[in-house]
Parts: sequence; C-alpha cells; structure tokens
Amino acid sequence: MSQRLITVAGAQLGPIQKAEGRDIAVGRMVRLMERAHRHGAQVVVFPELALTTFFPRWYEEDIANADHWYETALPSNETAPLFEAARKYSIAFHLGYAEKTPDGRRFNTAVFVHPSGEIVLKYRKIHLPGHKDYDPVRQVQHLEKRYFEVGDLGFPVVRAPVGGQDVNIGMLICNDRRWPETWRVLGLQQVELVMLGYNTPSINQDRRGFEAHHLRVLHSHLSIQSGCYQNACFGVGVAKGGVEDGHELFGHSIICNPQGEIMAQATSWDDELIVADCDLDMCNLGRTTIFNFAAHRRPEAYGRIVEQVGSSEPPVWQPRGARR
Amino acid sequence: MSQRLITVAGAQLGPIQKAEGRDIAVGRMVRLMERAHRHGAQVVVFPELALTTFFPRWYEEDIANADHWYETALPSNETAPLFEAARKYSIAFHLGYAEKTPDGRRFNTAVFVHPSGEIVLKYRKIHLPGHKDYDPVRQVQHLEKRYFEVGDLGFPVVRAPVGGQDVNIGMLICNDRRWPETWRVLGLQQVELVMLGYNTPSINQDRRGFEAHHLRVLHSHLSIQSGCYQNACFGVGVAKGGVEDGHELFGHSIICNPQGEIMAQATSWDDELIVADCDLDMCNLGRTTIFNFAAHRRPEAYGRIVEQVGSSEPPVWQPRGARR
Repeated sequence: MSQRLITVAGAQLGPIQKAEGRDIAVGRMVRLMERAHRHGAQVVVFPELALTTFFPRWYEEDIANADHWYETALPSNETAPLFEAARKYSIAFHLGYAEKTPDGRRFNTAVFVHPSGEIVLKYRKIHLPGHKDYDPVRQVQHLEKRYFEVGDLGFPVVRAPVGGQDVNIGMLICNDRRWPETWRVLGLQQVELVMLGYNTPSINQDRRGFEAHHLRVLHSHLSIQSGCYQNACFGVGVAKGGVEDGHELFGHSIICNPQGEIMAQATSWDDELIVADCDLDMCNLGRTTIFNFAAHRRPEAYGRIVEQVGSSEPPVWQPRGARR
Repeated sequence: MSQRLITVAGAQLGPIQKAEGRDIAVGRMVRLMERAHRHGAQVVVFPELALTTFFPRWYEEDIANADHWYETALPSNETAPLFEAARKYSIAFHLGYAEKTPDGRRFNTAVFVHPSGEIVLKYRKIHLPGHKDYDPVRQVQHLEKRYFEVGDLGFPVVRAPVGGQDVNIGMLICNDRRWPETWRVLGLQQVELVMLGYNTPSINQDRRGFEAHHLRVLHSHLSIQSGCYQNACFGVGVAKGGVEDGHELFGHSIICNPQGEIMAQATSWDDELIVADCDLDMCNLGRTTIFNFAAHRRPEAYGRIVEQVGSSEPPVWQPRGARR
C-alpha cells in the first residue's frame, strides 16, 4: 500500500491574558515546538491571533489605540524565537497573527513558515464574523469587522515541501471554517492539508436567540469534518482555549482525515499538543471516486453562490383553484 | 417563545426485490402513511426511487429494456393509493421515483404532493453518481449516469402550506446531499425544510481504494448535519435500506435540526417511521447571526466554484535560492 506520510502537530494554546506580553506567549509556543520535535512532527500548527489575547472583544473608539496588538514585521525581536526553533528542529510552522501593513492596512493573517524561516504562504481571513461598531445587545463585543479588512489574497494553495513530501497546503482562519465555499475553493486547487486556527467563545454571546452551549464544539467539528470529507483533504483545526480575562474560549483542537474522521483531539482548554501521522495518499480515494469533481460537479446549477450575497425569498405556491 | 411547529415523518423503506411489483411497495408505503397519521405527522418523506428496487445496479445494453422501472404518469393506477391516503389523512408527502417524460427523457425525480393530490414541487436529481457504461472493475454497477439525464429544474424552493404553516421547502436526492453547493443554493432561497431520499450501499463498491465500512453512515450524516447547520434549515434524509437481491443498503434515516443535531434516527434497515416536531422558528437564529449571508458571505472569493468543474493543480513553491 502506497504511503506518503507526514507527521503533523496541532499546538493548542491556553488563554493569553490582556496584560500578558508576546514574550510569554512565544515562550509557551517554543516549548510546544520542542514537544512537537520530540514527537517527530514536521509541521506545527498554532492558533489564530496566537501572540496575544483575542483583542477583538475589546472596543476602542480610536482604532489607533489598538495598534499594539498588531505585528508590523515577521520575524520581529519578539517572534524571532519561533523562527529559531523552527530552524533548530527543522520543523515548519503555521502562525496566526494580527498584521498591520506598511501602508496602514489591518488583516487577520496566517503564514506558513518553512524551517529555513522563509514565508511560504500567507493568507488573510476573508470571513470576518461579528460587527464593526459597538453593539449594546451583545454580552461581549466581537469587533473583527472593526479591526480587520476583508482578506485580499483569496484562498491560495501551493505545493510546498513538508517533511520529506511535497504537499498541497492551504489555510483558513476561524470563522472561515464554517463556510463550505472556503473548503471548496481550496479543494478545487487539490489541497491536501488545510491549516486553521481559531478563537471561539464557548457560548453564543449574540443574545439574539438560544443556542445550547454544548453545541459549540459540535459545530466546529462538523464544519471541519465535512470540509475534509467533501474535499478529500486533511484538516488541522487548532484553538486558543480557556478563560481570557473572564471570557471562555473552547479548545477541542482536532486533526481530521479525508474520510472526515477525527485522528487526534485535544481534551484540555490549555496548552496541549496533538500529533498524527497523515498519509497524504488517503486524499486520492475521494478525489478519484465519489468526489471526482470533473466527473460529477454541475457548476451550471450553482450560479446563486456567486450571483447573490444574501438570501432571497422563494416564490409562494398557490393551489390550482387559487391561481388566476 | 415563538414556535412555528410542523410534525414531520421520515418513512424509511426496507428492501424491494427486483421481482417485486409496485403494488407491494405501495402497500407498505400506505401502511407507513397510516402510522404517520397516528403520530400526528403532517408530512411524510419517502426515499429516492421508492417504488422499485434500486435498478441502476442492473446493466441493460438497450436502455429500452429498463423502461418498466420508470413512471410515465403520477398518479398512475399503481400509485393512486398513495394519493388517496394523503387525502384521507390530510397529509402531504414527498416521493422519489424514476420519471420518463412523454418525449422520452429519463430523470431521477422527487415530488412534493399536497394532501389534495396536487404536485407542489418537482425536483430532478442533478448530482448523478456512478458511470454510464459497464464498469468491469466494480463489484456492483452504479449506472445512474446511464439511466438518467442530469436534472434540468435547478434546485427550486417554494413557500407552501405544510400542516398549518407556510414553509419554504426544497429537495435533494441521495448523492446531492454530499455536495455543499446544493445545500447552499437552497439556503440562498431561505429553505426551511429539505427533503431527501437515498439508496446508499453499505460498502464502497468502487474497489479503487479502501474505505472502512462503518464510515458510510458517518459520511451521510456528516453531509446532512453540516448542510442543515450551515444553512439554518431542517433536513429529512430517508433511506431505502436492507438487502436487495444480495446488495446491502444502509438505513439510518434522520431528521436533523438547524443546529445540526439529529432529532430522530431510524435504527433498523427495514420499514420504519421516524417523527419529529420541527419548530421552523429555529431557522431564525443561524439566519440572522452567524449565517447572516448578507452580512458575511464573500462571493468575490468564490469564483472557482462556478468557473471550473474539475480541480486544478496548485503552483509549486520554490525556496528563494532556487528561484531565477
């Protein structure tokens, strides 16, 4: 049986408090990279906005007051230890962070970094949840639409070396994982490994309706498992979990195979490493049979997906006698 | 708390042998409608190709020799008892069948029938799995691409009376459920209730790769649960299960809510009724918050979904030193 193996680690982080500096987070991340090395991992996936607390819960009238949450260079003095550990252990890594560009644009960004320190692929989050202005109904603010622009890089996939293999890699960030369009755009580029980080509250804080708390993890897993199954790829979904300044985020990071099965799962809401040997040849079955896109997809019936943003009301059926 | 309740039944069928006539199937279906009435159901969902065995497993060189599997009129003498039971019990029903049109076109079709007997909505299956010609590699043939044309009605949704409510109804058939595009096209029309029937082998018979048998039900449920969650609708997935002339189909019909939760599940592979009270107002939470399409979707990033049918290879990344 053919096998094209890579050893993948998800490095879940516990909470980062608002007052904690990047040095504390980076120190924890380096220890997780050491642990990943001990497990023979060739790539480590860190969460979304991994260097700081999940700051979009904090409202700032003047966005410039939030500038200290963003990175303006990578590596920086504070993030250099991650790049050093990657080189030392010959391990690639995926990192989520808040990016501020030289011309002042702000994005929720992830990069995939080669052990050499070179950035192989960058993705900027497209599906920003939440809202732009202060929302008095909500229990906790979720200001991603305030703090970030919609990503402008599309959903890129590249074929890049990971461990000893060439792997088609792609990325999503947090809320992106709930949107099947994102997985499909990656799948149409033959993605084999989707890396994604998230910071997801353990309760729905919108307060516009009831959602049982235990469903939050189900929804995350359902989205990742179906995305992997329907696009015949591996997925690594990695949380920042635990209680940040009183605000609870769930953990339950997973590594998922192209059959939609969970191969490894974090069970704490703290720093925790999960590892799995992923045989990339497992992507072939779906891709050549039930999900052979060329044989079975019918884009002529999918027009609404790109032709409209919001939903539209369906026509009303009238019984025969009522029609004029 | 607002409630807009309808009582929905899924009427799973056990196997129908190749030699059995429609009278046997229809008799069983009428008994399931009686049972649904006793449970207070206002709509009953029957499986795909509910009137006969799953005939696309049988190869015919001359397709005319398969004509006896198709309906040319609905109701016919043989299907009239279903329409009579619907009127008697004031119960709507969803029926899958093979359709041959007056001009000789063949479709894998489903209809939603008002208790009056009037056909409210018709759908013709778009994602035909399998193959067109005899495949010597396969253990069992799956000739849907031989016996049916691709459906030509799109994915229609209408607002129609079900029980005492006006409900946005839509339909999928079997393999359609695995394609997130189908759910999304329905979701973009504010579908509240998706009805779908299936005939799905309990083992992957393609023999081009290994798939553990127990994953077959997982894949079906994963597709329905994520489709319901990501489009904030109810779904009723109903099997024809059991052993048809030596060929095993799984059961495990489900009714699923807009949170992706399974509300009712068949546990036999035989005739079995499942029932759930569906509060259509549960569709509102997703639709107005996390899956508020107008606020969060980004069609400008989804172009590939309609611009290409098959997948394309990604570019190869080259380390800086290797670039010219």
